[in-house]
Amino acid sequence: MDSRPGSKTRARIVAVDGGRRRTRPDYLATEEPLEIRLVAGTATTTVGVTMRTPGADFELATGFLHGEGVIAGKDDVDRVSYCVDPLVDAEQRFNIVNVGLTAPALPDLPSLERHFLTSSACGVCGKASLDALQLRDLPPLPPGPTVDPAVLPRLPDALRDAQGLFEATGGLHAAGLFTTDGTLVGLREDVGRHNAVDKLVGWALLQDRLPLHDHLLMVSGRSSYEIMQKALAAGIPVVCAVSAPSSLAVDLAKRFGMTLVGFLRGDRFNIYAGEDRLSMEPMFDRQ
Amino acid sequence: MDSRPGSKTRARIVAVDGGRRRTRPDYLATEEPLEIRLVAGTATTTVGVTMRTPGADFELATGFLHGEGVIAGKDDVDRVSYCVDPLVDAEQRFNIVNVGLTAPALPDLPSLERHFLTSSACGVCGKASLDALQLRDLPPLPPGPTVDPAVLPRLPDALRDAQGLFEATGGLHAAGLFTTDGTLVGLREDVGRHNAVDKLVGWALLQDRLPLHDHLLMVSGRSSYEIMQKALAAGIPVVCAVSAPSSLAVDLAKRFGMTLVGFLRGDRFNIYAGEDRLSMEPMFDRQ
Repeated sequence: MDSRPGSKTRARIVAVDGGRRRTRPDYLATEEPLEIRLVAGTATTTVGVTMRTPGADFELATGFLHGEGVIAGKDDVDRVSYCVDPLVDAEQRFNIVNVGLTAPALPDLPSLERHFLTSSACGVCGKASLDALQLRDLPPLPPGPTVDPAVLPRLPDALRDAQGLFEATGGLHAAGLFTTDGTLVGLREDVGRHNAVDKLVGWALLQDRLPLHDHLLMVSGRSSYEIMQKALAAGIPVVCAVSAPSSLAVDLAKRFGMTLVGFLRGDRFNIYAGEDRLSMEPMFDRQ
Repeated sequence: MDSRPGSKTRARIVAVDGGRRRTRPDYLATEEPLEIRLVAGTATTTVGVTMRTPGADFELATGFLHGEGVIAGKDDVDRVSYCVDPLVDAEQRFNIVNVGLTAPALPDLPSLERHFLTSSACGVCGKASLDALQLRDLPPLPPGPTVDPAVLPRLPDALRDAQGLFEATGGLHAAGLFTTDGTLVGLREDVGRHNAVDKLVGWALLQDRLPLHDHLLMVSGRSSYEIMQKALAAGIPVVCAVSAPSSLAVDLAKRFGMTLVGFLRGDRFNIYAGEDRLSMEPMFDRQ
């Protein structure tokens, strides 16, 4: 029995085209954490956890270790395998790769170790990552606000128009914070898309504006677990992206009562979760 | 005197349009590491290093800490400042942010700490990050091979045509390995762009094909420090990207003798470093 996660995940989405809505099946790129462990002799250590699309996991683990200078070539690798620890859940086993070294002992890793807080490291499967957020006392977001879907098509242009650095360099991600009527209240840019969101949330925090329950977040790229987790922590109920969401971004949105919109281009977009906030009908009070 | 890094960096590039080449000034999005430190009472600890575009650094630091659950709101923050340690180089001071907590002691971070090997953590300024690569015995790449510039415009389509998962999900980064005549020899996809490169290099490593001196790497997105560092470690002399490079990607390419092409779209592209490999004239032996 192979419970290996696939590289794509089935989903049902609401495709919006102008005023028309249609529910249809779709595929999402799967996003799951991968824990990379080094094994030498009887010693084992975890060297990193990365959010990845399952598939080519052994290559990902060895390529990562090569890029970091831990292994130089094939001769340094004895055996690569998924975790076979019977104590590890079947669901998680394929999210852990052991890279066995031909060297008799682990390399001197402490000099390479860095202290990283990372949400992607709180579990070794997507579900565990979501569980960990709940353990952090992050409650699902309350219903509302209602957003007029006609507001959404204006967001990408508003974001791009305000992107001064992109204009100059052509190379930056942007995150914009909007009110529910589509007014831009903050924009931050960065080479890293997570950083752009961090800057925006940090700005709101330093202005003592958190939580941002009555706001929308618009990001220039894709939406991933980490983007959604940052929006959730900031209390932002609606996240819109120009490109596709990952499977785990959608799972997080559903679990925590968030609205997730993707492929927002012109008056076409897909709703992956939380359609009720974008209702064209008056929303009933669900409290 | 403020030696603060700017959010954009001047560069001279070679703009290619069909057969015509023109050298012109351009701006790059600056990429520099930021070290985020927590301070409580007399205790200080580094919680992370992230590659970012300078600007809004205090917001980035506080937003990052908020997303990770370390601070809940403004009341948890006493003072945010750049590093003022006189022992730290002026160049690096603006790449270190101290977030002072109102709490009398540091939070229980060990439970949040993860072991991460990360190339972005090897210094707190871009130059230090490049120095660290040299300390890792990564020599500059040798001259050659010569690549016919007419090969480049074919790479993006070849990459896209081979991208099966993208077709299905619309949401994946790709990294493709090509021979110098433009033949695709390997392609990997992932929600994370670094992972796609790791998978490709890991594949080559496990096949004992490293170093990849006679190959080109084509990536679907932007080129950053980390992408270039992974290519360098694998010995790949030419990196092409559909979108823009960061300042540090260009610095790395120049320091280590790599060729970096960006905005590769149709028969137009920009050369940011290593133009000699793309010469339309016979290349002279520089050895």
